[in-house]
Amino acid sequence: MNKKSRKIKDASLICHTTFRVRFSEVDSMNIVWHGDYVRYFEDGREAFGREYPGLSYQDIYKSGFLTPIVELNVSYKHPLTVDDTAIVETRFIDTPAAKICFEYIIRRESDGVVIATGNSVQVFIDENKELQLLSPVFYENWKKKWIVK
Amino acid sequence: MNKKSRKIKDASLICHTTFRVRFSEVDSMNIVWHGDYVRYFEDGREAFGREYPGLSYQDIYKSGFLTPIVELNVSYKHPLTVDDTAIVETRFIDTPAAKICFEYIIRRESDGVVIATGNSVQVFIDENKELQLLSPVFYENWKKKWIVK
Amino acid sequence: MNKKSRKIKDASLICHTTFRVRFSEVDSMNIVWHGDYVRYFEDGREAFGREYPGLSYQDIYKSGFLTPIVELNVSYKHPLTVDDTAIVETRFIDTPAAKICFEYIIRRESDGVVIATGNSVQVFIDENKELQLLSPVFYENWKKKWIVK
Amino acid sequence: MNKKSRKIKDASLICHTTFRVRFSEVDSMNIVWHGDYVRYFEDGREAFGREYPGLSYQDIYKSGFLTPIVELNVSYKHPLTVDDTAIVETRFIDTPAAKICFEYIIRRESDGVVIATGNSVQVFIDENKELQLLSPVFYENWKKKWIVK
Repeated sequence: MNKKSRKIKDASLICHTTFRVRFSEVDSMNIVWHGDYVRYFEDGREAFGREYPGLSYQDIYKSGFLTPIVELNVSYKHPLTVDDTAIVETRFIDTPAAKICFEYIIRRESDGVVIATGNSVQVFIDENKELQLLSPVFYENWKKKWIVK
Repeated sequence: MNKKSRKIKDASLICHTTFRVRFSEVDSMNIVWHGDYVRYFEDGREAFGREYPGLSYQDIYKSGFLTPIVELNVSYKHPLTVDDTAIVETRFIDTPAAKICFEYIIRRESDGVVIATGNSVQVFIDENKELQLLSPVFYENWKKKWIVK
Repeated sequence: MNKKSRKIKDASLICHTTFRVRFSEVDSMNIVWHGDYVRYFEDGREAFGREYPGLSYQDIYKSGFLTPIVELNVSYKHPLTVDDTAIVETRFIDTPAAKICFEYIIRRESDGVVIATGNSVQVFIDENKELQLLSPVFYENWKKKWIVK
Repeated sequence: MNKKSRKIKDASLICHTTFRVRFSEVDSMNIVWHGDYVRYFEDGREAFGREYPGLSYQDIYKSGFLTPIVELNVSYKHPLTVDDTAIVETRFIDTPAAKICFEYIIRRESDGVVIATGNSVQVFIDENKELQLLSPVFYENWKKKWIVK
């Protein structure tokens, strides 16, 4: 592992949150419908924003920005069914770009089996819907506060 | 039937719209999850707004009002399953109150069997979130235009 | 209060469960979309099934029955917005009919204000999709176990 | 363009389907919530299955298989808002592997602007939940029927 990647690893900001599969999330194959994982990831992201204050939708909105998702990828490894409990691990990926990047791992709580992995990328747009090419100041400050380098 | 109820019947504004049941709407009992009917009713309401212009969410918004749902009732008679097609009948119910009232009937397209019935009530709130006790002028005008008495 | 209603009140089986409003549940009016309350009620029902074992979807399924919703009513009193936390009170309503009846009250956690109320009715169908006119034995036993009269 | 890629292009199976953005699909940023695109893609896939019979969920199920999604990727280029209409282009990607691969392009109907692109991968599992390493016969036959080489 070179110095740079180690640094990034050291700086990892991670949040864990647990959920229980609802009846309404299970499809006729008796497994969670693949689209519901998008909400599981969003749950992880929202919990992350509460654990490391300053990066919730409301914080961002108050700073004058919106952060729409521009990229979302999901790999499904094993299914979940009704009443299964699982843990979403949401990891902040630091990047010099004006983007918010997260990686997700969902594990079944009972045995730790990896159920799904994924990642998302968000960009910043201001009140005039202009894409920001540089990270907003509030985001740089948030990173300085939370990422120990 | 007395004169008043006949008049109301004459004045009926009705919209029909067809939908096909999606895989994602079917639960592990292999029937449409009951919560999805709320969207079917909303589809009916939105189609109604296009058929009788002036009552869509956007029209209402431009007039300075929001119309949140305050009452929703659904009776489930028969199930639907994947790939079934069904017709939502959305009927405007005229009332002197400052409310928008709809009744819904969902019928299976193949045989006309009634699958579900329901109704909704919406009220008007203005930009200061004040509940309107009198119908807004735009709504009175819309009723004058469309309801032949 | 007469004797009968008191008895029913004494017999009340209640479950409380807390939820936090997700970003994805809020609509363009910045309040929770009315259809999401159906899931909040279902969350309450599922938590109830875990608190009073024997009445979860799986328990019912293992007993050879399905319990589709046949009636659902919701009254919306006040809105919820992103990150609000609220409590679902799910109350079992005893009835001699072959039905499972629940009443729901959703209160904002911060001040106890009633946000919404509602109720649902479920019936029993067996593996041949026959509607049961008498309560299944497992349900009668569940009631005997939990409802102190 | 070399011979191979031309052949694949010639063989392209494509389905187009139109949808209108619902009020319930729009979030508090007044744009379609990113998770709803998963359903738009599924709509495209289901329409594809009807246009090239033999590859719908039901056809697959009758052949003794299930085809869970194992990979889903979405790139968001431009937002959609309430009442926008858009077209999903669903393209079958032929591969020798025991997989069903689709690519999706969503374009705004009014001006053809690309709103989102994506792709999905499905695998075959049999009734014993065994992953199939070879394409099932019914799938090979479906490909022979529809893909002109």
